[in-house]
Amino acid sequence: MIGTESPVLAVLCGDRHPPDMDHIEATAKVRYTDERGLADALRGADALFVYDFLSTAVAGAWHAADRVRWVHIASAGVDPVMFPALRDSDVVLTNSRGVFDDSIAEYVLGVIIAFAKDLARSIELQRRREWRHRESERIAGRRVLVVGTGPIGRAIARMLRAAGMSVSGMGRRARSGDEDFGEVHASADLLDHLPGYDYVVAVAPLTDQTKGLFAADAFAAMPAHARFVNVGRGELVVTADLVKALRDGRIAGAALDVFETEPLPDDNPLWTLENVLISPHMSGDFAGWRNTLVEVFAENFQRWQTGRPLRNVVDKQLGYVPSGH
Amino acid sequence: MIGTESPVLAVLCGDRHPPDMDHIEATAKVRYTDERGLADALRGADALFVYDFLSTAVAGAWHAADRVRWVHIASAGVDPVMFPALRDSDVVLTNSRGVFDDSIAEYVLGVIIAFAKDLARSIELQRRREWRHRESERIAGRRVLVVGTGPIGRAIARMLRAAGMSVSGMGRRARSGDEDFGEVHASADLLDHLPGYDYVVAVAPLTDQTKGLFAADAFAAMPAHARFVNVGRGELVVTADLVKALRDGRIAGAALDVFETEPLPDDNPLWTLENVLISPHMSGDFAGWRNTLVEVFAENFQRWQTGRPLRNVVDKQLGYVPSGH
Repeated sequence: MIGTESPVLAVLCGDRHPPDMDHIEATAKVRYTDERGLADALRGADALFVYDFLSTAVAGAWHAADRVRWVHIASAGVDPVMFPALRDSDVVLTNSRGVFDDSIAEYVLGVIIAFAKDLARSIELQRRREWRHRESERIAGRRVLVVGTGPIGRAIARMLRAAGMSVSGMGRRARSGDEDFGEVHASADLLDHLPGYDYVVAVAPLTDQTKGLFAADAFAAMPAHARFVNVGRGELVVTADLVKALRDGRIAGAALDVFETEPLPDDNPLWTLENVLISPHMSGDFAGWRNTLVEVFAENFQRWQTGRPLRNVVDKQLGYVPSGH
Repeated sequence: MIGTESPVLAVLCGDRHPPDMDHIEATAKVRYTDERGLADALRGADALFVYDFLSTAVAGAWHAADRVRWVHIASAGVDPVMFPALRDSDVVLTNSRGVFDDSIAEYVLGVIIAFAKDLARSIELQRRREWRHRESERIAGRRVLVVGTGPIGRAIARMLRAAGMSVSGMGRRARSGDEDFGEVHASADLLDHLPGYDYVVAVAPLTDQTKGLFAADAFAAMPAHARFVNVGRGELVVTADLVKALRDGRIAGAALDVFETEPLPDDNPLWTLENVLISPHMSGDFAGWRNTLVEVFAENFQRWQTGRPLRNVVDKQLGYVPSGH
């Protein structure tokens, strides 16, 4: 957007405004809004910053977007704004690729070691003041399949390899010699490869192809000692099938940071299943993440105002930023 | 020991005999004993295998050791057999250096990430089915002081560095350019250096010099956000001072695998303090560790029978195996 008028920027954020917006407010008319006011805020706006990145309200208010040219979302996953009217328009969509990568990688390594060292059980025994020695597992040499070869999956692969694990990837196309994964298997062959892994980490973008990828057949194909980690999206998993696989001992455990419904409802059996670690969609959210998210937006905002190419442009047909872009 | 007679080997093991002893039983008279029978077993024995490595019974039975030439202990720490009569004799003492290094390193990385990602709190909230988003910490770039530069300390340093942390060591003598630590500070300067670290890991051997090293002055010197990890020996710490430091918020947390008294008594306040992770002296004990311990002993036993130099010979005046040996 290049022009003499100040652009109008709608910011979907609810009660919690993004920090560090002074510089942007100095050069744009900024309309902060919650979901209810979104249609009004979109009318006449040139750009939309989806700061409340879990909201799915954009689809319902999009009819009012009469001149929006650019939408930026403060997350890596763009599935909340992947509705047909936006996807099939020529509105540019950008995301916050890169902000969460290393923090999520630390989290994934942490839950894997927690499983190997039986840390949750130690905490439970500690609560009961019970001293009970157990043997633990090593992580060195254990095989991990990282499903999703975007920047977060790559950061996870690098971290787990550095800690001595053996890591492969799974993406749309099979290939060898990948710099982070070595071997990348094709997702079409998921069931063939699952028996060979001790840990399976889901971090794929949510698309029509990946929705429900982890269903009963996938859990049945994993070894009984395998643990499943989901830091992607809850909808990658058929939750009922995961619950059944855990209950039946088809897999040995799961660490879940994302869920089909968030917050996870009180009556969901995942809360109380043994060998399940639940965290409330926070694996990437290190102290300072909100400032970093605004920095990423502000960088793109400046590019947009000066007519330079935006960073992290989503291929809306794929549903993510293609690698190398 | 070279001779035509089968040597006599006393094995202090209580009810749980070491595994995989067939080969040794074929070439030696093996006397398995518990603490009560130890003196009888030692009388006429040529060597002693302290498989029950936490037992302190050897000192009390040593008067009966009329021809023991070699003592091997199934642990890295040799403090349970560091009584004057053995220390000042010419009996050779060997340990199980190397068995636990990488497993303990994994454990230390795991508890550090558990602190950074608030994992214990997630488990507590999960128990109450409570969804509460929090911001977490990064581990990348955080500064760790590893007190103890033996093989376990080195494995910890390599692992934490691989995961992106900034690590220094602390040993008897200050030096630079160490291959695992970079900078090594002198333990005499402990209090001067503690303010500069986010995590302090105790893994020094227990000697007269290190006993009670972590007392009130040390905890006072750490930053308020620091966490303390002990995978060495409980006696490195003045427990009452640690409890007070945790209660007063002088430090932010502790992960403890070893204690002055083990099992940790029911009424010890450490069980219930917030931000304390307790595990029952198991950080190195991966599945298969007992077999590995016997492998290490068997290797030395074969060397001993054939008159070759033993591995892992302890400098009994120092109280550990000097590096490079």
